[in-house]
Amino acid sequence: MSHPLLETAIAALHARTFYAAFPENPSPDVYGAEADAQGRQRFDAQRGQRFTELQQGEATAWAGQEESPYEQAPLGVTYPFFAPEVLVANAQSAFDVWRKLKPARRAEILTEALEGMKSRFFDIAYATMHTTGQAFMMSFQASGPHAADRALEAIAAGLEEQTRFPEAVTWEKNMGKYTLALHKTWRAVPKGVALVIGCSTFPTWNTVPGLFASLVTGNPVLVKPHPKAVLPIAIVVAEVQKALVAAGLPAHICQLAVDADEHLITKDLAEHPAVKIIDYTGGAAFGEYVESLPGKTVFTEKTGVNSIILDSCADLDKVAQNLAFSVSLYSGQMCTAPQNFFVPAAGVRVGETLVPYDDVVQKLAAAVQGLAANPKAAPHVFGAIQNPATEARMHSLALPGSRTALAHAPYEHPQFANARTCGPAIYEVDATQTAQFGQELFGPVMLVIKTQNTQQSIHLAAQLAREHGAISCGAYTTDAATKEQIMDEMSLVGTPVSFNLTGGIYVNQNAGFSDFHVTGGNPAGNASITNPEFVIKRFTWVGFREMA
Amino acid sequence: MSHPLLETAIAALHARTFYAAFPENPSPDVYGAEADAQGRQRFDAQRGQRFTELQQGEATAWAGQEESPYEQAPLGVTYPFFAPEVLVANAQSAFDVWRKLKPARRAEILTEALEGMKSRFFDIAYATMHTTGQAFMMSFQASGPHAADRALEAIAAGLEEQTRFPEAVTWEKNMGKYTLALHKTWRAVPKGVALVIGCSTFPTWNTVPGLFASLVTGNPVLVKPHPKAVLPIAIVVAEVQKALVAAGLPAHICQLAVDADEHLITKDLAEHPAVKIIDYTGGAAFGEYVESLPGKTVFTEKTGVNSIILDSCADLDKVAQNLAFSVSLYSGQMCTAPQNFFVPAAGVRVGETLVPYDDVVQKLAAAVQGLAANPKAAPHVFGAIQNPATEARMHSLALPGSRTALAHAPYEHPQFANARTCGPAIYEVDATQTAQFGQELFGPVMLVIKTQNTQQSIHLAAQLAREHGAISCGAYTTDAATKEQIMDEMSLVGTPVSFNLTGGIYVNQNAGFSDFHVTGGNPAGNASITNPEFVIKRFTWVGFREMA
Repeated sequence: MSHPLLETAIAALHARTFYAAFPENPSPDVYGAEADAQGRQRFDAQRGQRFTELQQGEATAWAGQEESPYEQAPLGVTYPFFAPEVLVANAQSAFDVWRKLKPARRAEILTEALEGMKSRFFDIAYATMHTTGQAFMMSFQASGPHAADRALEAIAAGLEEQTRFPEAVTWEKNMGKYTLALHKTWRAVPKGVALVIGCSTFPTWNTVPGLFASLVTGNPVLVKPHPKAVLPIAIVVAEVQKALVAAGLPAHICQLAVDADEHLITKDLAEHPAVKIIDYTGGAAFGEYVESLPGKTVFTEKTGVNSIILDSCADLDKVAQNLAFSVSLYSGQMCTAPQNFFVPAAGVRVGETLVPYDDVVQKLAAAVQGLAANPKAAPHVFGAIQNPATEARMHSLALPGSRTALAHAPYEHPQFANARTCGPAIYEVDATQTAQFGQELFGPVMLVIKTQNTQQSIHLAAQLAREHGAISCGAYTTDAATKEQIMDEMSLVGTPVSFNLTGGIYVNQNAGFSDFHVTGGNPAGNASITNPEFVIKRFTWVGFREMA
Repeated sequence: MSHPLLETAIAALHARTFYAAFPENPSPDVYGAEADAQGRQRFDAQRGQRFTELQQGEATAWAGQEESPYEQAPLGVTYPFFAPEVLVANAQSAFDVWRKLKPARRAEILTEALEGMKSRFFDIAYATMHTTGQAFMMSFQASGPHAADRALEAIAAGLEEQTRFPEAVTWEKNMGKYTLALHKTWRAVPKGVALVIGCSTFPTWNTVPGLFASLVTGNPVLVKPHPKAVLPIAIVVAEVQKALVAAGLPAHICQLAVDADEHLITKDLAEHPAVKIIDYTGGAAFGEYVESLPGKTVFTEKTGVNSIILDSCADLDKVAQNLAFSVSLYSGQMCTAPQNFFVPAAGVRVGETLVPYDDVVQKLAAAVQGLAANPKAAPHVFGAIQNPATEARMHSLALPGSRTALAHAPYEHPQFANARTCGPAIYEVDATQTAQFGQELFGPVMLVIKTQNTQQSIHLAAQLAREHGAISCGAYTTDAATKEQIMDEMSLVGTPVSFNLTGGIYVNQNAGFSDFHVTGGNPAGNASITNPEFVIKRFTWVGFREMA
């Protein structure tokens, strides 16, 4: 194992204490004085141009339809289009040379590709900002170092699993009068062509784990980005291709597979019999279609309904600040953003006193409004709305019987006058109104649900996770028995819980090498980033024996 | 980890050299002077009686329909019947106490259950013999020590995977001005009620891996045996219940779920929404039904078409002896038994000479006939035919265009005059007659397929595995390039290959702790005994974080 990062990464996978291979701080001290400016220049130079960094042959057309949520204008970048049959045939032609490399060599080349990606973190950041609408800091961190950490985690896990059993042994059985000796060997055999289907909000963070997991286990990969968020992952694919070619390998081991402007190719690729593995991030309906395809190994991250359970705490103002930030961060467009806030009708206990329900709602509303009204904070927290449909849905949201505690309001972006912004709204509903809160409302919206008591809050949160999926859960309680009950009930519905977060850590955040992500215990998906399942299911063990 | 076997077993899982926790030799030196006689007495005493060892409550009826293939007469044993809803409700009621035990405690209790099973190896052997038709030695070894080894392997793997990550860590992130500290914990959360569906030919060997894998990962299990082979696994379930009760736990953690005489309950159980995990061994059609059930984690071992590739060897007579034994062992009723023997038209190279095709066929036929005609060998090798339908199918087999090289013939069993016996037949077909050899012919039958050359043999063997599944493959070649080609092509269709076996080791045999079994690379199934996938998919990782 010649890349120094790999051994550290495997150890980190098991330690699960803090580890980051790629610094999340974009400061010049870390990435160099020119890195930011150069990244921005490269991004600006790419606007209106063909993306020519890929090494996958002569395109049959050039396609692109990205728009900046900050400018509400097209980026004008186009990408080489190839027919699905061509992409699959290219991948198949590259399969043999890739699968026949030792896992350690694949892991080494892929880790070098991550070093290449690191040299592009700033271009990727600006590309992410102007496709997803994330603020700059999130664009940098989520699409750059945090994504690279999760990719490294997948490489490390894949390497470990493929080298977990000996390559060869002599097996000797005492048969009494003689010893029977067999020479046994094993191979980790990749399943075939892999497809990774990206989403529009986290175009690298949600794509690179599956991409690198399939690659390290020997499968050639087709990366099918969301047509509205191509550039960030196109840069990553280009860097992977560079590392492959530098190692004397065909670039076709990893290809970018963009849609034609008038024809989406995802289903053609997903249904192709040669495609054996699919990673998918996106909406539930298409995710269920992908999961239903026979004969495929499928990893999905769909949508869920994430809950916050408010029972008791030490400092309700700090809690309200923390939760306001969680619901506001990237305007509720994170898969881990909380939507439903369960508050007992009798209120939340703070020390010896009960803070009445209405006061709790008021504190939450004030905290959200405080963020939205702060021009120094809002742009960096909220960012912009990726999809015009999200903004439209927020404004037309009808929740009969609900009370509006805070209405949506756009905020003015100091840099981008034309930014598509929409501050969070807060609606109050009653615990009986399951039709209102029992659905995913993607975007900047918080539902406060008045419950009979914390018991009902827990049951409802668990029931929603069981029926609709959940990717995160936050809980505030100072009572040990309540905490254990929440852990137990939410564990049975496969939902991780963050307790009593205040200050600079949020329920939305998910740390590589420590926090498992979407491990499969509820309908939100089975991405299982990165537990052993995430890599093991991409290859098959096959054994060979012969007389020794 | 307090049971001494567990640490050894985990080490053996990784070493993959020879390991057996339970001796396969039934001699009095090993198991005691009285063990065989006592086991036989217990079996004889059980005939015609209710099986009263289970501790799962008052039955609503008693049912049983086993028949001895050696006697072609009913055993007369009946088992307590419970309605599917009752079984599932019992399992659910036992779930909480079982899942809340630490994995190490579960592993310890289950290993004690295997010690209990060991004390019953001889009763299990006679029960297996008189339900499956296996000869005594196979009945003892396969249903006793070999099955217990595979069960221990599943316990060890399950324990290791559940304890692979720390239970708790402190995660500290340097935020510059302060350190953010989180206390993180993880739980391996079982999926829910598990169902294990057994087969009629290997009632314990194919049932105990899934049974113990689901149990060690915290899932309560319903064991649904084949109605014609209940007693061997009923004894195992009784021993598991004894170990559970001895540990102060409810017997309902592991229940026997027999069919009513007039109503098969497998589908009721498999489709029950509370049943989350299914292990299945048996025919392909029902296996595909099980695999198609939505929302279940499914492990299957279905049928396949196993091939032998004959290219070149050192001693063709030894090869013919070995292959004749493989096809004759338990009269071809093993899932690993070879069916299709690919022989080049030009013959098989032995040293410098080519042995003509016809001579190869003649040697195979002579070797099979020699076994069948040897009254000292035949009963111990062939055993009896489990199912009258298998015997009938063998006799009515129509393979248009084939040539009969050896016809079926019953042999006389020295102990059981009424035994259902049927010696192997050998048919020759041409490589173009895929309709003849491209189907599973379960039972004592060998097809010799005349190919253009070894290249065609390899391609056909791989194609059959890809399309119809395969669980084993045997190959004979002295050429290194041919060997590598066979390994490569068969690895891509997920089929393990045994090379150049002669003497006392056969392609059908499969060693616990060393040989992976049905790892999922072809339509024969994905049982994956016992690689990490076999246990990992039975539970979900869930993480919890809180401010430290």
